[in-house]
Amino acid sequence: EEVSKLLALKAQLNTEDAGPQKFTLKTPKGTRDYNPQQMSIRNDVLQKIITVFKRHGAECIDTPVFELKEVLTGKYGEDSKLIYDLKDQGGEILSLRYDLTVPLARYLAMNKITNLKRYHIAKVYRRDNPAMTRGRYREFYQCDFDIAGAYDPMVPDAECLKVVTEILDTLNIGQYVLKINHRRLLDGMFEACGVPADKFRATCSTVDKLDKSPWDEVRTEMINEKGVTPEAADKIGEYVRLNGGTELAEKLLKDEKLSKTKAAVEGLEGIKLLLEYCALFGIKDKILFDLSLARGLDYYTGVIYEAVLTQPIKIGNEEQTVGSIAGGGRYDNLVGMFDSKHKQVPCVGVSVGVERVFSVLEAKLAAGDIAVRTSDIDVYVASAQKNFLEERIKVCAELWNAGIKTEQSYKKNPKMLNQLQHCEENGIPLAVVLGQSELERGVVKIRNIVSRQEDEVPRDSLVQELKTRISALNKEINGTS
Amino acid sequence: EEVSKLLALKAQLNTEDAGPQKFTLKTPKGTRDYNPQQMSIRNDVLQKIITVFKRHGAECIDTPVFELKEVLTGKYGEDSKLIYDLKDQGGEILSLRYDLTVPLARYLAMNKITNLKRYHIAKVYRRDNPAMTRGRYREFYQCDFDIAGAYDPMVPDAECLKVVTEILDTLNIGQYVLKINHRRLLDGMFEACGVPADKFRATCSTVDKLDKSPWDEVRTEMINEKGVTPEAADKIGEYVRLNGGTELAEKLLKDEKLSKTKAAVEGLEGIKLLLEYCALFGIKDKILFDLSLARGLDYYTGVIYEAVLTQPIKIGNEEQTVGSIAGGGRYDNLVGMFDSKHKQVPCVGVSVGVERVFSVLEAKLAAGDIAVRTSDIDVYVASAQKNFLEERIKVCAELWNAGIKTEQSYKKNPKMLNQLQHCEENGIPLAVVLGQSELERGVVKIRNIVSRQEDEVPRDSLVQELKTRISALNKEINGTS
Repeated sequence: EEVSKLLALKAQLNTEDAGPQKFTLKTPKGTRDYNPQQMSIRNDVLQKIITVFKRHGAECIDTPVFELKEVLTGKYGEDSKLIYDLKDQGGEILSLRYDLTVPLARYLAMNKITNLKRYHIAKVYRRDNPAMTRGRYREFYQCDFDIAGAYDPMVPDAECLKVVTEILDTLNIGQYVLKINHRRLLDGMFEACGVPADKFRATCSTVDKLDKSPWDEVRTEMINEKGVTPEAADKIGEYVRLNGGTELAEKLLKDEKLSKTKAAVEGLEGIKLLLEYCALFGIKDKILFDLSLARGLDYYTGVIYEAVLTQPIKIGNEEQTVGSIAGGGRYDNLVGMFDSKHKQVPCVGVSVGVERVFSVLEAKLAAGDIAVRTSDIDVYVASAQKNFLEERIKVCAELWNAGIKTEQSYKKNPKMLNQLQHCEENGIPLAVVLGQSELERGVVKIRNIVSRQEDEVPRDSLVQELKTRISALNKEINGTS
Repeated sequence: EEVSKLLALKAQLNTEDAGPQKFTLKTPKGTRDYNPQQMSIRNDVLQKIITVFKRHGAECIDTPVFELKEVLTGKYGEDSKLIYDLKDQGGEILSLRYDLTVPLARYLAMNKITNLKRYHIAKVYRRDNPAMTRGRYREFYQCDFDIAGAYDPMVPDAECLKVVTEILDTLNIGQYVLKINHRRLLDGMFEACGVPADKFRATCSTVDKLDKSPWDEVRTEMINEKGVTPEAADKIGEYVRLNGGTELAEKLLKDEKLSKTKAAVEGLEGIKLLLEYCALFGIKDKILFDLSLARGLDYYTGVIYEAVLTQPIKIGNEEQTVGSIAGGGRYDNLVGMFDSKHKQVPCVGVSVGVERVFSVLEAKLAAGDIAVRTSDIDVYVASAQKNFLEERIKVCAELWNAGIKTEQSYKKNPKMLNQLQHCEENGIPLAVVLGQSELERGVVKIRNIVSRQEDEVPRDSLVQELKTRISALNKEINGTS
């Protein structure tokens, strides 16, 4: 008997295998679909961010999802191995964009643009190890705000920080600190500690790991993999544990080793000026000058910054640590890499890590902490009677033509209960209920789904009646919440 | 002398070649960047379309830009050669999405969803011959609206047509006709004309070329490449020249050959019902039943449709023919191709060809027929005096915090003329002009850029004054245009 059961089970499995679908139905590794609830969250977050970008006068641009492979070559240092290449199908050799910064630099150089304040919201691609529950994907959104142009020191840089505070405040996802540092200071520090110039970038990308690894591990990597001497590493270790405000910058300007290093002095003077402008912008209490901040990318040349949430976020009964939520810096040499005459366009910008924001809000949704509506329908056109499809179609057309967000059942003779249930499940506030006797008297019923109250209104004034009620409902929602 | 000139010229060329940029700076073939003006047009068009989709209760989804290659395999017939493949870098074999319909079907099957009304606006990829001036790119937007679910015949299909009319009406880009036909009628017609069943799809994709090629060429391709007999081709030729309304469907239902073919009768009954619902929706005058409409894609199973602009569009002093601007149809078997048990989810949908709309509006912009603003800034914070950067920064922060769209110069001591010129060039309506003597008296000046009138207002009530003026300006714009 056991055997026959197993055989039956196997036969069943075989039937399933015999279908047209021979492969596992999934999205590619590290990617995902967004369902309507997730899209609702995503569109809401992006809209809030765009509002801030536009408040600062940023213009919008877009670039293709792929670039000539040569455009990306030599821009990302060690991370170049994470670039997605397209198959050579004849013609140009292409790669998917890795970020929105290199395409911006290519765009500026190609069109000989020397001034631009732009935002760009689009997906980028990295063949990294995905950690999808923490919002790390192979396909993910970047929201970038950049200011290109030769201006006075730190004025656009400070505005980028102001933009980040406005975004994090409007998203309201918890307390944060904006860490700042300066690549010139890092270079000066490496020099002062005895690191040879050709090892600055490699040493820098090792320091960048301090947010995830303890100093001991970072020190070991510096010595064993990057060829930094143990003495130099230990000196670096002294500096990178420092953080503070203007007083720290002033103290370091008097530091015996750093004060003799031109790059370090430049960096420290920059930090001082930036902190001054941040004070005028009223955001100084959110800024922390932190010598351990390094940022992974090769192309930064001046100030670098990173916004970090300082507390775990409460999701249901659990807490989730989010960490870094935005980052950026100054890159004055990137555009010149694309110009045949090395013509530079100084740039500074910031990228908001919206995937982490989506991830937090989705977890909150799953835990029941928040609710979202996936459609905005105001009116459902229903009928309890058979053969009323024609009448429903006519009413729908009338409401759509009047700009009213309207739905109806696609069935010829839907059940009244199902129609009302659809309204309740989808948060549709009003239903128009059509019936023979009412139509003969030249009226229709409007039903309030929540209160279940029904009112007869003249068929001729249906549109006006609905508009009045929708506007009242909207005022109610905006007034009480 | 000539020689030395040439040599000098050559030396100059060499210098340029010696730059770091060894390759031509361009976007990949068939793709383009969108500059701020183009983005402004694009966002405006998409927003109008989304408004229509939402009015009909569509929810929004998104899918990854690439899919497992197997997902796309066998869905596009002859066009499969146009799919972009990614390089095999270890792991899964991927291709860029070719449309948004197959990803939708994969999404429905994977998540076992049987009912969904969704819209999806995203870029798709085809290695086709680009014709960029006519809006045909290798990377282009699709705006799709689809209704999935088992419903009564032609109810969702008719709503798709209604959606198309609302979109084309709101975009207001010229007169149009919505051609409709039915795949079952085409199959029945081929059968009645003596085409073997295994040649239906190939014959159908040849008929699809009738919008671009004359019948003679299509006939030749049918006979020489698709193996249709000359007699069958000539009979097809008789039918495909027919178009009309309900009376044509009724006439064809009495046609000697078609009336004996089950598929043709099914198709014609479908067309009749669809036309009936279109009449109820009030859009019948925009619909044309056209037997030459075939649509290229393999997966359609029922009604198919295509919106075509009927008149050339005036751009400057020239006229441009646009042609097809939206298309779609019913595909009841596509989802089942992804389900291990062949479980079907009937679907019908429409895709709006927004690239052609963008292309027309961009040409109008270039010809000076329309104007666009690329940023929404309302207030520029200016100063004629030196060393007023700190004061400007403070005012900007105050205005941003109050939600006012504000800009300032990133220079420490910008010239007054340049600041006012920036306002004029960018359509910024108001400037706050800061000066020492005014500040000492506790006032600031507000300048209307167009009228050049300046008023002093108390520094303390600056935010409120600006809000009042911005709101008045917005009313003025909305009231007069």
